[in-house]
Amino acid sequence: MLSVAALSLRLGVSGCQGSKRSIATVISGSKTSKVVRDRLRAEVERMRSQVFGFRPSLVVLQVGDRDDSNLYISTKLKAAAEIGIDAKLTRLPNTATQDEVLQSVMAVNEDPSVHGLIVQLPLDSVNHIVTEQITNAISPEKDVDGLSFINAGKLSRGDLKDCFIPCTPNGCMELIRQTGVTVAGKHAVVIGRSKIVGAPMHDLLLWNHATVTTCHSKTPDLPQQVGRADILVVGAGRAEMVRGEWVKEGAVVIDCGINHVSDETKASGKRVVGDVHYSSANQRAGFITPVPGGVGPMTVAMLMENTVQSAQRFLLKMAAR
Amino acid sequence: MLSVAALSLRLGVSGCQGSKRSIATVISGSKTSKVVRDRLRAEVERMRSQVFGFRPSLVVLQVGDRDDSNLYISTKLKAAAEIGIDAKLTRLPNTATQDEVLQSVMAVNEDPSVHGLIVQLPLDSVNHIVTEQITNAISPEKDVDGLSFINAGKLSRGDLKDCFIPCTPNGCMELIRQTGVTVAGKHAVVIGRSKIVGAPMHDLLLWNHATVTTCHSKTPDLPQQVGRADILVVGAGRAEMVRGEWVKEGAVVIDCGINHVSDETKASGKRVVGDVHYSSANQRAGFITPVPGGVGPMTVAMLMENTVQSAQRFLLKMAAR
Repeated sequence: MLSVAALSLRLGVSGCQGSKRSIATVISGSKTSKVVRDRLRAEVERMRSQVFGFRPSLVVLQVGDRDDSNLYISTKLKAAAEIGIDAKLTRLPNTATQDEVLQSVMAVNEDPSVHGLIVQLPLDSVNHIVTEQITNAISPEKDVDGLSFINAGKLSRGDLKDCFIPCTPNGCMELIRQTGVTVAGKHAVVIGRSKIVGAPMHDLLLWNHATVTTCHSKTPDLPQQVGRADILVVGAGRAEMVRGEWVKEGAVVIDCGINHVSDETKASGKRVVGDVHYSSANQRAGFITPVPGGVGPMTVAMLMENTVQSAQRFLLKMAAR
Repeated sequence: MLSVAALSLRLGVSGCQGSKRSIATVISGSKTSKVVRDRLRAEVERMRSQVFGFRPSLVVLQVGDRDDSNLYISTKLKAAAEIGIDAKLTRLPNTATQDEVLQSVMAVNEDPSVHGLIVQLPLDSVNHIVTEQITNAISPEKDVDGLSFINAGKLSRGDLKDCFIPCTPNGCMELIRQTGVTVAGKHAVVIGRSKIVGAPMHDLLLWNHATVTTCHSKTPDLPQQVGRADILVVGAGRAEMVRGEWVKEGAVVIDCGINHVSDETKASGKRVVGDVHYSSANQRAGFITPVPGGVGPMTVAMLMENTVQSAQRFLLKMAAR
């Protein structure tokens, strides 16, 4: 076992600890995601040496041409290329119908050379497309975003080894692990219950044996609930809503929020903040993720992890035949 | 809106309330399940009058010949007959293989005259059968036990209108509704995280907008967690583990436990108790379910409800064609 200090050095947890500590140790997602990506690159190289020419393969399916989607996709393709994953973009025009999108999904499902398929959301089509029908048409074995009901059902019922875990909560767990704080037996509080952050985060913490409380917009006593959290994960989508004085002394605070607020001191006139009021929370937390540079960079890294995992499962199935 | 007293009279919540109350109001599952079954019988009659000769249809698939399974199945078939559901038992010998069981499931999946299929667990076969593969082979549209990953995924992610809810937690919600206590905004605590009780109970309470804490065997401070519950649902499987002094004054206490403990004062030498220590908990709770006669009778009633609901969805689909 590594000491926390050693882990900090290796894995991007920085700051000061001990009895004189007055501010939280920062958990750097930028550094941790690099560690993950380095590990994955080595893993892909190992696979290539075992099976000549083999590469994990990912398809990103885009409908339309949204600027924000283009940016996210290029980040994913770049990360994949650096790791050695063969990632391709399939783009349908914004005139695509639901049937055409489904046909594209089916074609990738049936292509044995592809190990992962994600559909970039939101779908940008002039036609009415039911997003849920598209995400649930993805073969569960290739659903590396983990958003299909089958993968959600497995995760929510504790079948973690046989599913794909959504990338943001999976990244949060990786950051929590970096702190060296044991999850089992702790009281974890999750704020938010979305399909991509809060709900799967609850499941992950629960099946890592924390006692988990889920809070949301209908929770009347949020400060009190937050005050009981040894581990706090916030995916509320409201700028700086969690105040430092709510936070339990020494808690692990993971902030999934990405909110743009106006800031006249910046050239752009705005800046990015999380769902946690950082400068007060870091006075009480034991560990805290910054925004930006915390959870954000982990999401793409965990998508790569799921893709490599899918390729590994594919190779295991091949070997078993 | 009915007053609690009126509801009590109609729906099987009995006991005394008001400032002089010293013991909890008892929530009778026996009486409430009868109300549900009466409602379903009327609903089936209505369906029959709308579509001549139509009856909801349920198949119970049994493998082997366990005494306890035989008893549970006969209870289900009897309840179905009383409501007007056409329920049939398909029994395979204990020499059945996994493939044979899967074939039976597929045959029922493909039979348009059947609206619900449950597989009686545990499977009693001399051959190795992976239970999860059997329950997940059931068509999600006929999975009236709600145990497939697809139905679990929908429930856990808040898609309650488009799924089947497992019968025991669904029955617990019905009992909670009988109390007249609003779930939204309350702090609910669930003890246990099983696939058939705790995990889906968490989901149901969460999507009815309670703040929900899930506790389990790794929770170090169970008395404190229980003490914060406005609504407490216990599915721990340990006789009388929740002590009355833990319970918050006025809480709704739902006990899913069925435990046999020795009792020399009984002719059988034993008696059935729940997971809650009833005689101390009813001194503090506002409402409490007895064991037996609480959650138990609700489970079969809710299986019938799911079957009728499945038949209704079938009719709606027919009408839409």
